[in-house]
Amino acid sequence: MEIMRKSFASDNNSGVHPVIMKAIEDANRGHVIGYGDDPFTEKALKLCKEHFGEDSETFFVFTGTAANVLGVSALIKPYNAIICAQTAHLNEHECGSPEKYTGCKVIALPSNDGKITVDQIKEHLSGQGNQQYSQVKVIAITQPTELGVLYTIEEIQILSEFAHSHGLYLVMDGARIANAAVRLKKNLKQVTLDCGVDVLSFGGTKNGMMFGEAVVFFSSNMAGDFKYIRKQGMNLGAKMRFISAQFNAYLTDNLWYENALSANTMASYLETRVKDIKGISIPLPVSTNALFPILPPAAIPHIRKKFFFYMWDEKIHQVRWMTSFDTEKKDVDEFAEVIKKYVEEYNFL
Amino acid sequence: MEIMRKSFASDNNSGVHPVIMKAIEDANRGHVIGYGDDPFTEKALKLCKEHFGEDSETFFVFTGTAANVLGVSALIKPYNAIICAQTAHLNEHECGSPEKYTGCKVIALPSNDGKITVDQIKEHLSGQGNQQYSQVKVIAITQPTELGVLYTIEEIQILSEFAHSHGLYLVMDGARIANAAVRLKKNLKQVTLDCGVDVLSFGGTKNGMMFGEAVVFFSSNMAGDFKYIRKQGMNLGAKMRFISAQFNAYLTDNLWYENALSANTMASYLETRVKDIKGISIPLPVSTNALFPILPPAAIPHIRKKFFFYMWDEKIHQVRWMTSFDTEKKDVDEFAEVIKKYVEEYNFL
Amino acid sequence: MEIMRKSFASDNNSGVHPVIMKAIEDANRGHVIGYGDDPFTEKALKLCKEHFGEDSETFFVFTGTAANVLGVSALIKPYNAIICAQTAHLNEHECGSPEKYTGCKVIALPSNDGKITVDQIKEHLSGQGNQQYSQVKVIAITQPTELGVLYTIEEIQILSEFAHSHGLYLVMDGARIANAAVRLKKNLKQVTLDCGVDVLSFGGTKNGMMFGEAVVFFSSNMAGDFKYIRKQGMNLGAKMRFISAQFNAYLTDNLWYENALSANTMASYLETRVKDIKGISIPLPVSTNALFPILPPAAIPHIRKKFFFYMWDEKIHQVRWMTSFDTEKKDVDEFAEVIKKYVEEYNFL
Amino acid sequence: MEIMRKSFASDNNSGVHPVIMKAIEDANRGHVIGYGDDPFTEKALKLCKEHFGEDSETFFVFTGTAANVLGVSALIKPYNAIICAQTAHLNEHECGSPEKYTGCKVIALPSNDGKITVDQIKEHLSGQGNQQYSQVKVIAITQPTELGVLYTIEEIQILSEFAHSHGLYLVMDGARIANAAVRLKKNLKQVTLDCGVDVLSFGGTKNGMMFGEAVVFFSSNMAGDFKYIRKQGMNLGAKMRFISAQFNAYLTDNLWYENALSANTMASYLETRVKDIKGISIPLPVSTNALFPILPPAAIPHIRKKFFFYMWDEKIHQVRWMTSFDTEKKDVDEFAEVIKKYVEEYNFL
Repeated sequence: MEIMRKSFASDNNSGVHPVIMKAIEDANRGHVIGYGDDPFTEKALKLCKEHFGEDSETFFVFTGTAANVLGVSALIKPYNAIICAQTAHLNEHECGSPEKYTGCKVIALPSNDGKITVDQIKEHLSGQGNQQYSQVKVIAITQPTELGVLYTIEEIQILSEFAHSHGLYLVMDGARIANAAVRLKKNLKQVTLDCGVDVLSFGGTKNGMMFGEAVVFFSSNMAGDFKYIRKQGMNLGAKMRFISAQFNAYLTDNLWYENALSANTMASYLETRVKDIKGISIPLPVSTNALFPILPPAAIPHIRKKFFFYMWDEKIHQVRWMTSFDTEKKDVDEFAEVIKKYVEEYNFL
Repeated sequence: MEIMRKSFASDNNSGVHPVIMKAIEDANRGHVIGYGDDPFTEKALKLCKEHFGEDSETFFVFTGTAANVLGVSALIKPYNAIICAQTAHLNEHECGSPEKYTGCKVIALPSNDGKITVDQIKEHLSGQGNQQYSQVKVIAITQPTELGVLYTIEEIQILSEFAHSHGLYLVMDGARIANAAVRLKKNLKQVTLDCGVDVLSFGGTKNGMMFGEAVVFFSSNMAGDFKYIRKQGMNLGAKMRFISAQFNAYLTDNLWYENALSANTMASYLETRVKDIKGISIPLPVSTNALFPILPPAAIPHIRKKFFFYMWDEKIHQVRWMTSFDTEKKDVDEFAEVIKKYVEEYNFL
Repeated sequence: MEIMRKSFASDNNSGVHPVIMKAIEDANRGHVIGYGDDPFTEKALKLCKEHFGEDSETFFVFTGTAANVLGVSALIKPYNAIICAQTAHLNEHECGSPEKYTGCKVIALPSNDGKITVDQIKEHLSGQGNQQYSQVKVIAITQPTELGVLYTIEEIQILSEFAHSHGLYLVMDGARIANAAVRLKKNLKQVTLDCGVDVLSFGGTKNGMMFGEAVVFFSSNMAGDFKYIRKQGMNLGAKMRFISAQFNAYLTDNLWYENALSANTMASYLETRVKDIKGISIPLPVSTNALFPILPPAAIPHIRKKFFFYMWDEKIHQVRWMTSFDTEKKDVDEFAEVIKKYVEEYNFL
Repeated sequence: MEIMRKSFASDNNSGVHPVIMKAIEDANRGHVIGYGDDPFTEKALKLCKEHFGEDSETFFVFTGTAANVLGVSALIKPYNAIICAQTAHLNEHECGSPEKYTGCKVIALPSNDGKITVDQIKEHLSGQGNQQYSQVKVIAITQPTELGVLYTIEEIQILSEFAHSHGLYLVMDGARIANAAVRLKKNLKQVTLDCGVDVLSFGGTKNGMMFGEAVVFFSSNMAGDFKYIRKQGMNLGAKMRFISAQFNAYLTDNLWYENALSANTMASYLETRVKDIKGISIPLPVSTNALFPILPPAAIPHIRKKFFFYMWDEKIHQVRWMTSFDTEKKDVDEFAEVIKKYVEEYNFL
């Protein structure tokens, strides 16, 4: 079976980190009770409390969609609304799962870098208390954003203070929260609970796991009935130990940190390699493991033939490149050569 | 970390078959596109067509709940009803996921062995065409039933002919369809498509896989939009290759058959070992990998302390014992000794 | 336009009581603010507090389906279950609206007379706390039942005490609660709040109103967000005054009582007229405004040609006859003559 | 009970036109079968076919929310999306009912006058066929828009041609379609079916009816199962004749036209009376029965104390004034005097 070379299309094109694969194999001994009542899960939940605080409660699910949607659904009723950036996964890339599963309106705010502000949110609160309007209850942010940009700690604190003073929750899609923490030089708790985040989608798949995401409630009283929500939400794993074992490895010996650090470093290196090529512009800061460069349109198909990646905005010829935990310097070098070749060749428009 | 001895509580207490684990490890090479556009998935879907017919379309999901609920949701509208046995997983053990996700009524028919009949179904069709009533659209059966009992091929054909002549679909929860096929001495197509089944939940987790179930539509025109349903249903895997690789191993060299044969054989052997113990009765036939014996109530806690298992019906002291692909003769011998000891000791009520 | 003679098919075949029609006409003066912020609604809500207690909160909706479904939806989450009789409107006659709108499972208990008991309910509570099961949260009863039978005050108290001691709510479908109150010689509060009912569907349409039902929460803290639920549930009236004006008339000068008394009296009179006809049996007590007699099958089509009514149970030749607020003695006499003629003529099977 | 003077707050603050009230009273004779199987409904549906075409199918519901949401729900599946203006009732004023009931995403396009264009829609079609995206299936327009502005016949034709050539439906919220038809000098069919509209919410309440809206499917094969959707959607009226009788009056002798003409004329007259007052600007054309003037902020509370109306956009001091079928010249004169007085007095900011 033919396998692609290292891809810069998405960090989920990578496989599984060897330490995590080893943990899965080690978990494959004997019998344990299903659905989470096993020693692997017990240990993983204990580790989560160490990383996210003693009052946190964590639940493992299979997909990022489930983590995002089910986590929010624990907080709201169908007549509520969720506010997020137009670019948020929750808005654009879940095939409408938030609306379907929660019944809520998703209010999408325009954003160039994927970040949203208190001023934008305020404009959508005039209907609070009016029975004709969906009642905003959740502010959802992605850290880093889908465009690889970071909120500062202060920006998140401002959002959470605004949320809490208005009876709202602040929810964070942390599919790549490890990459954010690395860049901000903080631990997982500092970039979430300590900024006032109420519920976190804690991603593992994009940072070296095989499958498995987590919903972290930072206050245990929010999580009371989530076990029913997860089951009804079709994301309760029978052989749960194989998710938990991955999180055990991920949260031990800084594996989450090392993987994200490596991916971030390679993205920076790729930026260094290509930013001065005539014909390329990189309008957004490269803060984590993604670049969104604008290329000469004629060059794009040629580069994509060698290294598949996704178009981001056809109209302005913007593409997305992502590095993974296993991206190596030689992969970047090879990719950068190809980019350079074709950008220079086709930079005439 | 302490691991339990072999359990007779559920076939999902087992781990992963070594051949499947090997396939997972082998899939962990290099990068491939996510979400199913990879060579492992291509191969797995080809194998599914070989096993289920050229016009079938298969979609992999993570959980049995998802396979059951999303498969049905492709066939119905919210004003429809699903008819199934009261004991059906779809009715009792999905935490209401069918109602939540499809909006449909689930009509639960009483059943001692988990099987339902055309006569029972007919009694619920008097409201067809009447706007006040949910409109029955799906007959859902479990093969083998949750009580380990089998429909004969002819019984399923009768149900499917009734269904199709009344504009209904026949859906099969095949979480353990491999165990049924082994016992009926048929291949997978013969116990599904050839009996007139429209959609199958094809289980893997309970028969040696780590995770992964499949929704099989036997007619491709039913499956047109299922890719959206799966994503919206929070069950589209990013690193899909790790489900597909498991199915590749499972559907190659008769692994599905060998695993189920082994589990069935051990259940029969367990039956042989315990059926003549004074104080035990086994009211239902042991057709696949489950026994539902009735025990002296005082014996139950003692046996459960040595080997954990679930109560089935507290009122009549009925319990459930299940064998797995990896249950060995010595496990059964050991379990049977414990059973014999305590049943004989406490058989005085 | 040809109008049918008085019908015994349903109490909704009648028109509008003249006093209510007069109230509607009187409300048609000038302009008032829409959606309930008008003096008619203010007065009606005040009257509801007088009838149902000062801590009650009432909301008007258009249909009985809405009153039943939206009232329950204020109490539950999608992973909950509602227990009711198999014959309950909520189960059989809302085209699956409870499942669609709340996402919850409806557990239907077998019942000959439409009543359910604590013993029946207990059998469905074994999954409480288990994540695989829908969590029962609401016991829903109909008073009088869809078969015209009454719960005694004591029976309802037993159900409500059981409910509250198990963390459940007791909800009452009171589409014909006026008929029950008349027969039990109690006022509206005595047959609801004083028995421990938490939420009532308070019916008006079947007892002389044009349209309009109410959801009554007996504790104001249950009703906090119902205004959003009603709007999202497509049952917030723009010209609300025309529902409110009807309730003002209905709840003034005992109109609700007089109408129900008249209908009940006519049902008793009809029973008196037909019960001794050879060939008729009336297996259930005639407590309110409905009879469910069993007739000689050959007589049924002949009677129905003269007076349309509905079959209840084809298998045992059981039909349903209902009286309305405007049924008169001469209507009953005429109907009874027709019944007598054909039952005697065809009573040979 | 004190009744407000004529209001310019909303056309639903008015009462019922005398001819419609008379029709309601006339329908209150004797018994008819419930739920729509009555001669009044038969006649009303026949009239609808005359107005909307022989292949159309019409269903009566209680509220505009229901007409909008249930009509759309007949066309789509939960993974679909609905595109409309940000100002559309469907987006802003149904308390999230479209999302709750259909499960679909609502994509809100920015619009100053409530109209949307093909170019705007095109930008949201890039995810068609991609499983990560909600699949756009319905374009929903309001005619006239919530800002009282009209699409031309040609503009609607362009939208419908685009919709149909892309496999989409064009749905029209016609809560005030009568006002549009009057201004466009067209009949009801010309402004809907003949422009390519697939489904219409046909409003009555805002133009002289007591309650009652209709869902009109212009092709009968779209409407096949709508009777179940209406019932499950809690909008099937028991005493349906009282909606139907209103539509019978409304669609006879041009009552719908006369009422709308009167309202439109009074809006024009109000415009004439106030447009030259120094300090008022009316940025949008007054095409139907609404004005959205910008006033000196200090004048607004004074005018509202005399004549209640709603703020539209606090930030720019824009308000909404609406005329009704029963607005008279003297009401406008009186209102205009008050406006003039306070605008001139407070026009200093």
